[in-house]
Amino acid sequence: MATLCRPAICVPEHVITMEQTLELARSLHADHPQLRLVLRLIENTGVRTRHIVQPIEETLKHPGFTQRNALYEAESKRLVPPVIEQALEYAELRPADIDLIVYVSCTGFMMPSLTAWLINTMGFRTDTRQTPIAQLGCAAGGAAINRAHDFCLAYPGANVLIVACEFCSLCYQPTDVGVGSLLSNGLFGDAIAAAVVRGDGGTGIRLERNGSHLVPDTVDWIAYGVRNTGFHFLLDKRVPKTMEMLAPALRTLAEQHSWDVSGLDFYIIHAGGPRILDDLCRLLSLKPAAFRYSRETLETRGNIASAVVFDAMARMFADGTQVDSARGVIAGFGPGITAEIALGSWTSAATAGDEEDLVAVDAAPS
Amino acid sequence: MATLCRPAICVPEHVITMEQTLELARSLHADHPQLRLVLRLIENTGVRTRHIVQPIEETLKHPGFTQRNALYEAESKRLVPPVIEQALEYAELRPADIDLIVYVSCTGFMMPSLTAWLINTMGFRTDTRQTPIAQLGCAAGGAAINRAHDFCLAYPGANVLIVACEFCSLCYQPTDVGVGSLLSNGLFGDAIAAAVVRGDGGTGIRLERNGSHLVPDTVDWIAYGVRNTGFHFLLDKRVPKTMEMLAPALRTLAEQHSWDVSGLDFYIIHAGGPRILDDLCRLLSLKPAAFRYSRETLETRGNIASAVVFDAMARMFADGTQVDSARGVIAGFGPGITAEIALGSWTSAATAGDEEDLVAVDAAPS
Repeated sequence: MATLCRPAICVPEHVITMEQTLELARSLHADHPQLRLVLRLIENTGVRTRHIVQPIEETLKHPGFTQRNALYEAESKRLVPPVIEQALEYAELRPADIDLIVYVSCTGFMMPSLTAWLINTMGFRTDTRQTPIAQLGCAAGGAAINRAHDFCLAYPGANVLIVACEFCSLCYQPTDVGVGSLLSNGLFGDAIAAAVVRGDGGTGIRLERNGSHLVPDTVDWIAYGVRNTGFHFLLDKRVPKTMEMLAPALRTLAEQHSWDVSGLDFYIIHAGGPRILDDLCRLLSLKPAAFRYSRETLETRGNIASAVVFDAMARMFADGTQVDSARGVIAGFGPGITAEIALGSWTSAATAGDEEDLVAVDAAPS
Repeated sequence: MATLCRPAICVPEHVITMEQTLELARSLHADHPQLRLVLRLIENTGVRTRHIVQPIEETLKHPGFTQRNALYEAESKRLVPPVIEQALEYAELRPADIDLIVYVSCTGFMMPSLTAWLINTMGFRTDTRQTPIAQLGCAAGGAAINRAHDFCLAYPGANVLIVACEFCSLCYQPTDVGVGSLLSNGLFGDAIAAAVVRGDGGTGIRLERNGSHLVPDTVDWIAYGVRNTGFHFLLDKRVPKTMEMLAPALRTLAEQHSWDVSGLDFYIIHAGGPRILDDLCRLLSLKPAAFRYSRETLETRGNIASAVVFDAMARMFADGTQVDSARGVIAGFGPGITAEIALGSWTSAATAGDEEDLVAVDAAPS
């Protein structure tokens, strides 16, 4: 039994508001032929604030891929360890209890990945397995949960640490002025998330089934151009409409589990943008409140790539309204176009203990 | 039960010999203060031929990371599909039978990774899971086998396709003239490998146990500098001596399986360089012939990164000398410094059939 425990989240200290974003778009792209469209698209994101690793003046400069990636490394080493410590604390585990680290991040590149440095500096065992994934983009949060689930199925009782580290602001490309790029400049934010999947015990989402779906022939709809200047994010205008292609995948996976995807108790959905949430909500015949955690993430953090699902989930844990056996779905969407979907039920360690007490009472001679 | 079936291998058409490599080193670095050392180190690799994706004149140019990575994408799309077809044929499976694709490659970067394109173009199911890994370097071949094994433990009967695509020549950096870089220029080669891990049936190595080991505080011994010019391979001179740190990890994993690592029937070892093979052979008290497959790979292909273990394994399959239940170890080594180790036994589908016949005969009334 694999239980996804409460995620820890960290956002960097620098903040940019929607007003600042709009003002920047107006001043930097005053002569852009589609400026009005760009401003309207940015307003429509509903992203009120975003956090970024550098002050906005520094973010707007491009000092070269060399320096960008060096900053990625330095900031990840500064910001990731406390988030992991918090996630371990939530899961009531120590570093030595972790059997696998799944590290997902698409906004910088290191080899060896940060996993090796983390094992050396944070007290993880030298036989901890490492699965670093850089190429699943925003879907990697869901993929990390699913591969952690698989690992616990393979090795019952094993524990997996998931880390999602995304500094989207380090992929800002001042020379990219297509509408998709300017929209992205107003949409993405930086954040770090960590969460533990416990093989035994723990309070959180008991993972029950997972699946992946690739939408055929959409490889270039969400993609990186890999260039001398680093990663250039390419966003096709058809992306916001992909929910019609992905909603059936969610429905099918739920049916395989004998669940109705429209009748679940909680929904943790990748907040790629407002249209994605609106369309999926409608296609699954849900009330807007069903996606409230994802909407809060989008409004206050922006699209934080693979960290979205953890930030939304952290809000659900914080609000504390789930009851045991409440059923839900987690879905990450990203390049491919790929969906990584998980189904699970709320479980609390306390209740498990209560049940044991109950059994003991029942078994006592009367 | 997960069986690693016969790997398919492809090397690009352009060949460079050791004589050409030495001549190039002499002419390009005539004034290098350590030229003699460099020439001796290259000679000592024992690498007689290597295959590369471009003619040597083109390989020596650096047209920028943009063009290098575009070439990586074009060549991988040209060369990978036939290797996969061959691997599927060896495993007697069709694309639709594959549940997970593990794609490992550290010499180019694509997002989405090649997995999405492969699913679209080769007839894999849209619900095929994708695990692209770019950050485990030469250890990724072993890691791919181990994660495939884990997946089959989680989902008995599932099938996993592994692809290792390495164009090391696209990471040649003309401005890097340290001894480690010049040695690397004479050591690494290009190759593509694919292999299927079958959940049921199949002839090959039945995977029984796997483990990972990180050598503490060696993060910067094998690493990429990620720069405007792409990936710069950094090789510390202490790397060839790491077997003293890794041999105990192989021994320990074997002991956990009640095996003596010095008494196995076959050894598929990462051919990082001659010293690695020599030292590990000595530390495990083996005869040189024990590593013959890895030595052949090194001599004829060079160090082909994550593809080494598959190329060495392909030679073992081709020579056909393994008998059922022969026990062996597979070990990939790479940045971290990380070892990914697998233990398994030879199994042949034919024999499994024979056993069934035998049972039938035994059970027949006499």
